[in-house]
Parts: sequence; structure tokens; C-alpha cells
Amino acid sequence: MSAPIRIGVFDSGIGGLSVLRHLITELPEVHYIYVGDTARVPYGNKSVATIAHYAAQSATFLRSKGVDMIVVACNTVSSAALDIVEAIAHVPVVGMIEPAARAALELTRTRRIGVIGTRATIESDAYTLALYTHGGSERLTVVQHACPLLVALAEEGWLAHPATLAIIEEYLRPLLDEAVDTIILGCTHFPLLADAIGQVAPVTLVDPGYWATRHVQRMLGSHATSEHRLPRTARVEYYVTDVPNNFAAVARQFLGFDIGQPHRLSLEEITPIVTQ
Amino acid sequence: MSAPIRIGVFDSGIGGLSVLRHLITELPEVHYIYVGDTARVPYGNKSVATIAHYAAQSATFLRSKGVDMIVVACNTVSSAALDIVEAIAHVPVVGMIEPAARAALELTRTRRIGVIGTRATIESDAYTLALYTHGGSERLTVVQHACPLLVALAEEGWLAHPATLAIIEEYLRPLLDEAVDTIILGCTHFPLLADAIGQVAPVTLVDPGYWATRHVQRMLGSHATSEHRLPRTARVEYYVTDVPNNFAAVARQFLGFDIGQPHRLSLEEITPIVTQ
Repeated sequence: MSAPIRIGVFDSGIGGLSVLRHLITELPEVHYIYVGDTARVPYGNKSVATIAHYAAQSATFLRSKGVDMIVVACNTVSSAALDIVEAIAHVPVVGMIEPAARAALELTRTRRIGVIGTRATIESDAYTLALYTHGGSERLTVVQHACPLLVALAEEGWLAHPATLAIIEEYLRPLLDEAVDTIILGCTHFPLLADAIGQVAPVTLVDPGYWATRHVQRMLGSHATSEHRLPRTARVEYYVTDVPNNFAAVARQFLGFDIGQPHRLSLEEITPIVTQ
Repeated sequence: MSAPIRIGVFDSGIGGLSVLRHLITELPEVHYIYVGDTARVPYGNKSVATIAHYAAQSATFLRSKGVDMIVVACNTVSSAALDIVEAIAHVPVVGMIEPAARAALELTRTRRIGVIGTRATIESDAYTLALYTHGGSERLTVVQHACPLLVALAEEGWLAHPATLAIIEEYLRPLLDEAVDTIILGCTHFPLLADAIGQVAPVTLVDPGYWATRHVQRMLGSHATSEHRLPRTARVEYYVTDVPNNFAAVARQFLGFDIGQPHRLSLEEITPIVTQ
């Protein structure tokens, strides 16, 4: 019997737990190491240089843990700094952008696709570039919009509040004006708001965490489980850089179960080592 | 002619510029050194241990710059870590809490005071403790509520949006149910929302940055200027730990004028030195 595969999963904070949830559900036999940089969260309004520096520290830590694969469970890092993670990892790296862009292209009927995310994700144009790269020669329309307030609303748990719906309506207006039929939820916080977003926009919603998980499954040659539900136990080591008072409650919201006491980690002391 | 007084002003990010604005207006002859930890902002949802560590790094940097006084232009740091800043500073330290609490006690007619702030500020009970400490023996009612979404709304510039008003209404309900006649705006972002808050709650609003500035004036033996308006020039050195794309626009919103290109600073490399 061989040792279980070890997958490192990292995010700016706890949003990546919504991705981990898909991984645990579809690939329950894997041993996961999750890193959340809760001491410096959020990344979405920060510069590319700072995001890349932080991501390099997480990747260096995961490399030191001997993982077999890294899933970048953060759209902001995936769009701004996937290259530096790949340069450090020395193992396969799966980001959010490519799997979600390919899924959106498969799911759209009208080839009019919307993308929402943090300011950094949208300003990077990473989704737009991926969609046009894989979109073939037929006419394709992509409309993207930064929705930074949705991160705070999801963390507050205001998932169905009238104010949340009003903010979503305002954010999605440019997308609906362009009659998109598919929207990529380009931030790990947004799947928590899928019901509210669906109320405002009756379109196909693409959760990158799910499609990235499907991609990981294919890479591992794993078949989809017949279960599609959270297993009762999962092998996960949790590392976070800060444990604020409301951590347990917010983590539960993203993951669906309690994670217990996470390990404390100081990413600031890690000097990224890039060796190619 | 003696050298001008040098005051260090620090915050988790750019919110402290709303405090600096009061300082520049009332004490235009001072030389200011502003530090904004924009690479790790916000502090308001983080643990006391992490907030104290970050504050100690800013205080150590300001001490190395030889300032004559430090203004902690952040309610979260003032409520969670003023003691460590004082232990490092070796010069007088002015926080937000005491001046604002004393002002609220002077301004209230009914002795029913509300406090809003970040989660960390409210959970510290710092304002409540200061109000009861200085409030005398007569009956005093304090109602406080964490309003984390207001930080994001202020930074987005959604200062009069219907969703902003709806969120403020929800947040202030427990305060208005208790018929407070005075509310302390216990976060440097909230003065930007003073008009919207005033629409929802026709009460006296206390801006801690203004009252902290008055306190600094008294400490310096300075008279109030007759001008009460932003001078055309101000001597400020700006240090920030990150410069995201929208930095200039957001800074302008808080300060009222352009700050030009700030200095980049890595607080992470600073080891706090506490010597008493």
C-alpha cells in the first residue's frame, strides 16, 4: 500500500476553504495541507508585487512540507502570481483560472461570459485572457467587474440580506446589460453568495473551486466519487498566520464543518527560494 | 528659531489619513511622518496578538525616525495595543480612545452613548471601559456594535448609496433602540460616512481624530488656529508597506488632497525593540 498523495492548498485566508471543501468531497483519500494567510488577508486590494511575495512564502512553506501537488485556492493569487508559485513548487500547480475559463466556455450557449472577482483579479485580466486564448475563433464577449464588497458581505454571513441583493444588483448590472448567460465566480468567497447572485442573475454560475477539483481528479487519474458529499473524516493539516476571535465560525461557513485548532505559522519569516 | 516638532502618525492603512487631515488643519507648522501598513491592512478582524505585533513594528520605525510624539491614528490599535506602543515610543503617545470618550461624555445630554467600530475595537471594550472610567457616578448607558462592512463601503467610496444606508440602519438599530444621543465613530473610516450615519441617526457624532488632535494641541500648548482649513502646503513624509493601484484615489478621499508618491517601507523586517 503506497502512502497517500499529499496536496498543498493555500489561500490569502479562509476563502480557500470553499475550494478545500470540493477537494475533500471529490478526493477524500488525499492528505491535505491547508495554508491560510489570515494575518495579511485580504490580498484582493493589494499590489501584484505584494501578492507575489506573499504567495511565494506560502509556496515555499508547502514545498518544505513535501507535497505532491499545489492547488492555489485563491483567484487573486492565481491571476497575479501563478508563475512564481510554479517556479517555486517543483510539483504540479493547479490554479483557479484555467479550469474555470474552460468550464465557462463549455457551459455558455451564447458565448457571452461575465467574470466577477477582487480588484486585483479583474485588473490582471487573467480570466479574460484565458477565455480568449481557449475560446476559439468564433465571436466571444467577456464582461468583467470587480466586486470587492462581496468579500466582506460573505465573511459577515450576510448571504441573503436585502443590502447584499442591492449591492449584487449594482455590481452585476454591466454584465446583465451585455446579456451574459454564464458568470465565473472569480473569488473563493463568492460561492457562498451563489443563491443571492442567482436571484439577481438567472444565468449559469461557474465555481472555479469545483472545476479546479475536477482538473486535479483528471491529473491524478482518479474517478469521480459516486458520493459527492463531504466525508465524515478528512486528513487535513491546517496552518494559519492568525487566529482572530471569529475564525472558527467563519471557517465553518466556508467548509461546512469545524476544523478544530489550526497550527499557527509565521509566513513573514519565510524567505522564498526560487530554484529552477 | 527651533526645529519644528516632529509627530509620527501611524495606522493599519489609509484610514489614518482622516486623522492626519485634522492634525494638518489644526497644527500646520508640525512636521509629520505618516506610516500606513497597507500590505497587511485591515487590522480590524485580526487577533490582539497580531495587531500588537504590527503596531510594535510601526512604533519601532517611528522611534528610529526620532519623532517627538506618536499619534496612533487607528482605533483598532488604540484599543488593542496602546500599551505596547507606549512601551516602545519613549515619547508621548496619543491614542483615539481617551480623547473621544471624554468628548462624548461632555457632549451627551442624556448620558446614553453609542460606540461603533471594527470587530477588534468593539471586542476589546476599550471605549466602554474609558467611558465608565471617566463617566462619574451618575447613571451612564453605553451601547456598542461592530460594523465591519462600513470599512469596505468607505474604501469603495459608496458614501451615499442606498445599500450603505440600509447597512447603517441595520448596524445602528441596537443603538437607536437604546435611544443614544451621541455616537462615537470608533474607526478612522467612519467619518467619511458621517453624512449617511447622520441621515439614519440624528444624534451627535464624535470623530475621535478631531478630539485626539485637540488633545495634541493642548499637550503642545498650541492655540487653535483661526483658520480651521487645510493649509496649502504641509510637511508630511508618507511611508506605506504597499501601493495598490487604487491607492492615490482612496488616499485623496481620506485626506482631501494628493499625497504624491509615498515611500515604500517593509515593516515585516523590523524587529520591535521594547526597552523601558
